[in-house]
Order: sequence, then structure tokens, then C-alpha cells
Amino acid sequence: MPHFMDALAAAVRAKRSPLMVGLDPRLASLPDAIRPEAEAPPAVVAESFRVFCCGVVDAVADLTPIVKPQAAFFEQLGPAGMGALGAVIEHARAAGLLVCVDGKRNDIGSTAEAYADGWLGRSSAWGGDALTVSPYLGDDSLEPFTKLAAERDAGVFVLVKTSNPGGKLWQDRQIDGRPLYRHVGEHVESLAAAAAADCGYGVAGAVVGATYPEQLAELRAAMPHTWFLIPGFGAQGGSAADTAGGFDANGLGAVVNSSRGVIFAHAKPEHAGRDWQDAVRAAAAEAVEQFRAETPTGGL
Amino acid sequence: MPHFMDALAAAVRAKRSPLMVGLDPRLASLPDAIRPEAEAPPAVVAESFRVFCCGVVDAVADLTPIVKPQAAFFEQLGPAGMGALGAVIEHARAAGLLVCVDGKRNDIGSTAEAYADGWLGRSSAWGGDALTVSPYLGDDSLEPFTKLAAERDAGVFVLVKTSNPGGKLWQDRQIDGRPLYRHVGEHVESLAAAAAADCGYGVAGAVVGATYPEQLAELRAAMPHTWFLIPGFGAQGGSAADTAGGFDANGLGAVVNSSRGVIFAHAKPEHAGRDWQDAVRAAAAEAVEQFRAETPTGGL
Repeated sequence: MPHFMDALAAAVRAKRSPLMVGLDPRLASLPDAIRPEAEAPPAVVAESFRVFCCGVVDAVADLTPIVKPQAAFFEQLGPAGMGALGAVIEHARAAGLLVCVDGKRNDIGSTAEAYADGWLGRSSAWGGDALTVSPYLGDDSLEPFTKLAAERDAGVFVLVKTSNPGGKLWQDRQIDGRPLYRHVGEHVESLAAAAAADCGYGVAGAVVGATYPEQLAELRAAMPHTWFLIPGFGAQGGSAADTAGGFDANGLGAVVNSSRGVIFAHAKPEHAGRDWQDAVRAAAAEAVEQFRAETPTGGL
Repeated sequence: MPHFMDALAAAVRAKRSPLMVGLDPRLASLPDAIRPEAEAPPAVVAESFRVFCCGVVDAVADLTPIVKPQAAFFEQLGPAGMGALGAVIEHARAAGLLVCVDGKRNDIGSTAEAYADGWLGRSSAWGGDALTVSPYLGDDSLEPFTKLAAERDAGVFVLVKTSNPGGKLWQDRQIDGRPLYRHVGEHVESLAAAAAADCGYGVAGAVVGATYPEQLAELRAAMPHTWFLIPGFGAQGGSAADTAGGFDANGLGAVVNSSRGVIFAHAKPEHAGRDWQDAVRAAAAEAVEQFRAETPTGGL
């Protein structure tokens, strides 16, 4: 494998798409054809999650460089759900996609090493390529992730400026004249710059929400070696134009996640009566067209 | 079930013990009698983790009110490890213990709800009583946890001041004249005060490290409704006396975690040749004696 960020850059270029499809299975939102009853046992629900997420992967594989399974929805089902998560990661890899598990994990020292060992790289137990990580525990909690990511051609995306309204409670507080998220961003940038790939981006990436376009552009300028994972597009209110500031001049440096807006497209009125995978594919294609029209990715 | 904090207070009183035993299984550190070879497949290692952790539970059940399985070490094994985690939680409950899963989870909005639904309360998929949660995502990310914890007689422990050296990088930075951890602590205290149990403590607890005794005492005074989960005792350098400031005058308000110092006691020279469960039990009993001698718990 090449460096994860080189693999990501190459996939974005090859597909002319910065779309990251978020795999957030929710029982109540599954298409009729595969939705078990509300009282179904966890193992049955887990199997429906597996079928659904693998079906989404098949529908979007040529439109997206990377998928992001959300650990929470699999964990919600207990151990059975975790088996489904493993199967979904494997299916996405087999479909030629990169996989970033959204777990927002972290802990101290040797415990962080255990998370990193479990989640980072195709030789790991879960077999994904990247993981989202939370920064509250400080620099020594991030180091095991970036170290192992470098060794295994994997990636790490650290929460910097999150897309939710409440994120500002502490992230936007001023410390020595700059908000906390800038301090976290600068530390992530230093980690990224220390281990940059041929494409110019390092193993440490950052999560920066589409719902704050000004801060997104500010952080893009301040973090030139840091690839951004941008949530908040679509259902959360961010537009493709809102994400434009997260890209570099070459149309690289960012992937934009869409979960509900793509994977549950079958429920939109305009897709009524359509096969659910066709609806997913149409929604993904529409998002990609928006990115090509309204962000520097259009120049790829 | 009573309110989780009432159940915890009652168990601490009944056992005259604030010891929380951390279940952090690591392959290389398992006792010879149950350690598989280093190259054993994940399912074999997972089974050894289950046997080990259940054996620890059996050895300490009358010495500790609560155990804390560390999710990272189970996750490190992939899906097989998660099955073992579920079995360990079930065994600890059957042994009459409360269970706090150390997952340091969090996410935004409906995703946080999924984590809360999966982990909180005995009716949940994992069946534990409490979960550790990370605060970086702000107030709206914590709300689903405290809301569901109140509904299900479960508990939440939010990271406030962590025990690792790097925790200070952002937690100790000054915002309006007080460190970030104080701001986080005050928010957690407001959540705790809003839903206090008969014992006076609320569903929201806080993680505050034993390695910073002054801050521990400072936060105890500032957070009268917030039960503390205190890591950092033993292997990380904190002594029983260092934890004294985390308790209230009645000897309640805190549990102190010990992981390696208890569960891997068989490797200590003084326990050479002893049955590993006897060594675990002796180490736990020794810790409890230290808490009785050097903290307000001795007055219980």
C-alpha cells in the first residue's frame, strides 16, 4: 500500500470525487425491502445492517473514494452489530474503496495503542484504513495513532472543529487570543507536517465541519499539510459551496461526508417507487456533481 | 433498579470499598495458565480474555462495588473481542457488581443517542450500568447520555481532568481565568445537580485523575453533586493518599480505579508461585486496606 493520504489523493483524482459516503445504518430508516420488524433480535437487525451497507457500497463504489462506517450504529446492537461492522469493512475494501471508521476513539498511553492497533491499517483486526480520534486527552494520546498510522500506511482524523451547534461550547473559547480549535488544529498540523506523503498531506488529518464555512477556510490556510474530513454536508445544513474553502487550489485536501442524504435517498419523494440502490446511486451522483460544480475538485 | 448513583453509594458502603477494578486484558500479561501463544487467532485470544476477566471478577467480587472493562483491549481483537466483552459484562452483573464500560465514546446528536442506547443500562444491548464519555463535542453531545442515563438508572462519567501527562496540553489552558477542565467540570456539575439521586449525586459523573491531587481536591469542592471516577492509582503513580481529596466528608463521592496493579498481581515477585486468582485477590484487598487507612472511606 502507498501512504494513506497518497492513496486517498489518487482515489479522489481517479473518480473526480471528494464524496465520502457515511454508512450510518438505522433500523427505522432502512428500505422496506430489507427492514426487519422493530422488535427483531439484534442478530437479525445486524444482518439487515450488513446487507444494507454492502448494498450502499455496491451502489456508490465508482462514485466515491472512501466510505465511513459509523461505529455507534453497529455498537448499538451489541456484539452482533460489531460482526456486521467487520463484514461491511471487508466488503468495502473488496469493492476497491478506502475505509475510515468513525469511532471518535481515544484514551491514554498504552490504551490508545490498543485502539490504534485494532483499527488502523489493513493488517489490523478490523482491517480499515483510517479512524476518527478525539483530542481532549492531549498530545500523548494522539501520538500512538499517528505513529502506527505511519507504520501501516493508515490515516487518522482528529476532531478539530465539529459540525454540531454545541461544539462551540469549548472549541470556540479563546485561549491566548485564539479559539481552542485553532490550538488543536495547529498541533494536528505539526503532526501532519512531520510525516507528509508525496501528495503533501500527512498521516494526521482533521475533522472540520461544513456548517462553519469561515472557520473551514481559516483552518485550510493554517493547516496546509492536513487533509480534512468535512462532516455536516446535506442533512446537517452545509451546502457544497460551504465546503469549497476546505479544498486546496488543486482540488485536493478534503473529503466531504454525506450520510443520510445519500444512504436513505429512497425515502425522498423524488425517488418514490424506485429501487433503493438506484436512489442511493442517484443521490451520490448528484452530490458529486455539486462538488464538481462548486468546489476546486471540478478542476481535477 | 435504583438510581445508578444510589446503587453505587450503597455498594461502596456495603463493601466499605471505593475500589474499582479495571479489566484491561493484555495478551502478554495474562497468567501462564490461561495465556495462549502470541500468534493465536483472535477468537482464541478473545476466549482467553473472557476467562481471565471472569476469573478476576470472581476473585474480587466481594472487595469491589464496580468493575470497569476497558473497551480498547477487546476492540483490539476485532469482532471476536467484542463478543468476549459482552460475556464479561454479563458475568460481572451476575456476580452482583456494577459495570462501567470505559469507552470514552461520544459523537453528535443522534449518533450520541445510538452510543447511549447501546451502552447505558441493563436493558441495553451491552447491558452495563455506566459509560465513560469524552466532552470535546460540547453540551449537545453530552445531553443524550445524561437523558438516557436518567431514564434507565444508568450513569455517565465525563472526562474532566485526565491522569496522563499530556492531558494538560489543552485541559489546563486558561479560559477567562480558569483552566478548561474547570469549565468542563462546571458543566458536568450542572448536569449532575439537575438530576441528583437520594445520595446527593447526579447521573453525570466525572473522570478526574489521581495523578493531580490538588486539582482533584479543587474539583471535589467545585462539584458537590458529581461522583468521581479516579484513574491513575497504582501503576500510573497515584497513591491512596493522593485520592483522599476526591471523596466527600462521608467517604462517598469517588471510586478509584486500579487495573494493572490488581489484575496482573501474579507477576509481582511477592506473589511468585501463587495461584493467579489468589494474587489478584490479595492485591485488591491490599488496595482496599489502603483506601480505608488513607481516605474518608475508612469512616464508612
